[in-house]
Amino acid sequence: MASSQLYNSLLSSSLLMKSHSTSAVHHHIPKLVIKCNATPSTVNTISPPPSTTKFSAKYVPFNSISTNTPTTEFYSLNEIVYRSHAGGLLDIQHDMEALKQLDGEYWKTLFDSRIGTTKWPYGSGVWSKKEWVLPEIDNDDIVSAFEGNSNLFWAERFGKKFLQMNDLWVKHCGISHTGSFKDLGMTVLVSQVNRLRKMNVPLVGVGCASTGDTSAALSAYCAAANIPSIVFLPANKISMAQLVQPIANGAFVLSIDTDFDGCMKLIREVTAELPIYLANSLNSLRLEGQKTAAIEILQQFDWKVPDWVIVPGGNLGNIYAFYKGFRMCQELALVDRIPRLVCAQAANANPLYLYYKSGWKEFTPLKASTTFASAIQIGDPVSIDRAVYALKNSNGIVGEATEEELMDAMALADSTGMFICPHTGVALTALIKLRNSGIIGPTDKTVVVSTAHGLKFTQSKIDYHSREIKDITCKYANPPVQVKAEFGSVMDVLKKYLSNTRLH
Amino acid sequence: MASSQLYNSLLSSSLLMKSHSTSAVHHHIPKLVIKCNATPSTVNTISPPPSTTKFSAKYVPFNSISTNTPTTEFYSLNEIVYRSHAGGLLDIQHDMEALKQLDGEYWKTLFDSRIGTTKWPYGSGVWSKKEWVLPEIDNDDIVSAFEGNSNLFWAERFGKKFLQMNDLWVKHCGISHTGSFKDLGMTVLVSQVNRLRKMNVPLVGVGCASTGDTSAALSAYCAAANIPSIVFLPANKISMAQLVQPIANGAFVLSIDTDFDGCMKLIREVTAELPIYLANSLNSLRLEGQKTAAIEILQQFDWKVPDWVIVPGGNLGNIYAFYKGFRMCQELALVDRIPRLVCAQAANANPLYLYYKSGWKEFTPLKASTTFASAIQIGDPVSIDRAVYALKNSNGIVGEATEEELMDAMALADSTGMFICPHTGVALTALIKLRNSGIIGPTDKTVVVSTAHGLKFTQSKIDYHSREIKDITCKYANPPVQVKAEFGSVMDVLKKYLSNTRLH
Repeated sequence: MASSQLYNSLLSSSLLMKSHSTSAVHHHIPKLVIKCNATPSTVNTISPPPSTTKFSAKYVPFNSISTNTPTTEFYSLNEIVYRSHAGGLLDIQHDMEALKQLDGEYWKTLFDSRIGTTKWPYGSGVWSKKEWVLPEIDNDDIVSAFEGNSNLFWAERFGKKFLQMNDLWVKHCGISHTGSFKDLGMTVLVSQVNRLRKMNVPLVGVGCASTGDTSAALSAYCAAANIPSIVFLPANKISMAQLVQPIANGAFVLSIDTDFDGCMKLIREVTAELPIYLANSLNSLRLEGQKTAAIEILQQFDWKVPDWVIVPGGNLGNIYAFYKGFRMCQELALVDRIPRLVCAQAANANPLYLYYKSGWKEFTPLKASTTFASAIQIGDPVSIDRAVYALKNSNGIVGEATEEELMDAMALADSTGMFICPHTGVALTALIKLRNSGIIGPTDKTVVVSTAHGLKFTQSKIDYHSREIKDITCKYANPPVQVKAEFGSVMDVLKKYLSNTRLH
Repeated sequence: MASSQLYNSLLSSSLLMKSHSTSAVHHHIPKLVIKCNATPSTVNTISPPPSTTKFSAKYVPFNSISTNTPTTEFYSLNEIVYRSHAGGLLDIQHDMEALKQLDGEYWKTLFDSRIGTTKWPYGSGVWSKKEWVLPEIDNDDIVSAFEGNSNLFWAERFGKKFLQMNDLWVKHCGISHTGSFKDLGMTVLVSQVNRLRKMNVPLVGVGCASTGDTSAALSAYCAAANIPSIVFLPANKISMAQLVQPIANGAFVLSIDTDFDGCMKLIREVTAELPIYLANSLNSLRLEGQKTAAIEILQQFDWKVPDWVIVPGGNLGNIYAFYKGFRMCQELALVDRIPRLVCAQAANANPLYLYYKSGWKEFTPLKASTTFASAIQIGDPVSIDRAVYALKNSNGIVGEATEEELMDAMALADSTGMFICPHTGVALTALIKLRNSGIIGPTDKTVVVSTAHGLKFTQSKIDYHSREIKDITCKYANPPVQVKAEFGSVMDVLKKYLSNTRLH
């Protein structure tokens, strides 16, 4: 451990960066000899890595990957293309042979050397893996808000108290610029749009139809880069609280007297007419950023592979992004295996769960019912094929959570010092069930992915702790206790509470 | 730059840690010789730093520091003491002679080597500076949620568009576990309480009277450590939204039929009777954690000292914490000067501003009026003496912001990709005024400290963008535009918007 840390720190991030930036000049990087004064007798010589390697990536049809079929269909990342010729999903394929010219130890050392670096843009958890994300973008074109680097929280109390587990971790992707994991993908999408605009591709803005985290992340990154963002929303269907992030971040918000599907239809029609880039959920650029969360988890475990990673799933892009991140680390020999993935759905929006339960026999889109886990309230997920591929190739499992289960799990997690969103409650419920059935063992190294900050979902917590949710007992509610403003009364109440506390 | 990064990365954080941990055994740390395989011909030898140094800290009366008067009054950090014998503020004094046995280069290298480390607890932005914070605590006693490491955001667009500045930065302390900078201090306070409890000091819990960020941070850290937390609040004076964090985090919340002062009085009386640790705002432990944000800023600038640092001020502990962090870096030769500090107050709660304007002649506590910057709505600040000392010794300035100014500044900042709280709006207003008057120059390296995540203050943003604030124009409001669900109508609205956008 000590030796690997030392080894990792031997390489200078700035040197390594230079050699990979496609725009940098490679000729004159000298060998560097540093005399270290703080500790005696330390002289260090580092040669930069080979500068001849050129990394690249392109769009290919996703089904050429999932069926392992060669294809002649591909598109430059500088093209504006959302679907394959046949109308299917796209995927970003990296030149793996180029990446393989450097070994696993090299990549681990490189990524570790960039943690928290002040060298733009490598301090970001996404752009510290730039060669694996968008290798050909200029650093100056990148729009970044120091994404990633989020806490991998040891859920010691939750694990021990409720699950008899000692190696449970929660990856807090929501502790971020806009408060959700969407930042990881949006930095990539907006950076690429920024690059296209600088290349004089006539894109006048970026549009999306989203009521939640996507429009928040889109508008924030666009605002930072001075790119117009356009958000289509169904009138009278959402609250100002859901709107406030895009509005504050200067998005042009159209409130349209239709439902969500109507908004989607209109934005597709509009972006076919006007040069507005569509930041929809099938976009494969975003997954390249999201996959870095998987790499970051490995990094935070000193490249030890967890046994399980549990991800909430609605539109199902994120479960594939995690798979892709882990698989790339395996393929490039940073690790020798990948974790088993669990996708967790709300029972009110569980088409993947039903598909899984049918033995992957028949997929039936459904109409999702209302769920507190509003970001995954999706009955016909865009990335269904991606998710199935990820789960089949990771010996994966799909779980589900009722409204009561997910809210109770959220309350229990919060009582141990977290402040999670309802989607994370869904993932924790899947964990609880797999742990209770013995499928996840007491010492299994397990990561639950938390997708948004609880501060985005305070109303659901207020409802729960006020016991104001229909058909739910709210059995872990912790409402305030009313007391008279008298020393004696306060002391009585406190003494009673403290004597109860001691008994636990 | 490249060479200093390399130099910094030469020392292994794990080795350095071992040599400083007071509980570690120092005898057998060998010289380490690492053969590095990833790059050719790199062999590195590092001797561990001297293991004889013992760091320590104690409570002393603050006025012995501010008047530079020797004192024989001091208290161990393991005592429970909030005020000096004479009733004044306390301060934590480190054994600077011990710290000075290592030079500035050494400390910079040590702190840099710990950025993002997986070695507990040094990955935290607070505990990476453990020797300067709580040197004598066992690592196992520390309660940490990876505080600090927050984004120092280059406010490129805000600076260039509104202020003709090119070196403006916003330190986003609110992108954190509980969403405010209070985490930085609370990890220290709760860790020390955890230590005391493990030493069998009979503390049954930690209490505070706070409507906002303090109770949120207190209850989260206590919950993680399984320490009862007790929050006193005035009944019917605050909303469930303000309550939801402590309630969710399992605090015992007493809603008392009195006002805030009544709650403070009762909790002081109660903690004099019951063994409940008082996490009040005069607590000097918390400032030790908060001061690390200053050190982190220097670190993020590669130890280049900014010209200005602007901090919102209410109870005024934080401005002193920043001063203390910067001054310690100067005293221990990490940097050769400190920034000029600006404390920014809401005009509705501006006792420090008035004191400053009087030429520090007379301080008059006042009754604060309501402000959107609710966390600094304080008329009689506990840390007034600390703030005055910090400002006088940093050639400091005090600014103020009206409600309209702070809300407008917040809206402008958000429009450039941030999502700040009203307190940060106060700080930005102070910046705008100092920039307009020419006191802050166009190329001055300037940092604005953002104290909480905007997600904690969405209601104020909703009010602003709905133009529903009395006596305020809300001139940068960006309300949604209503459109009929017809392709033609949508296209018309969009084309008009886009033609306006192109003109800007």
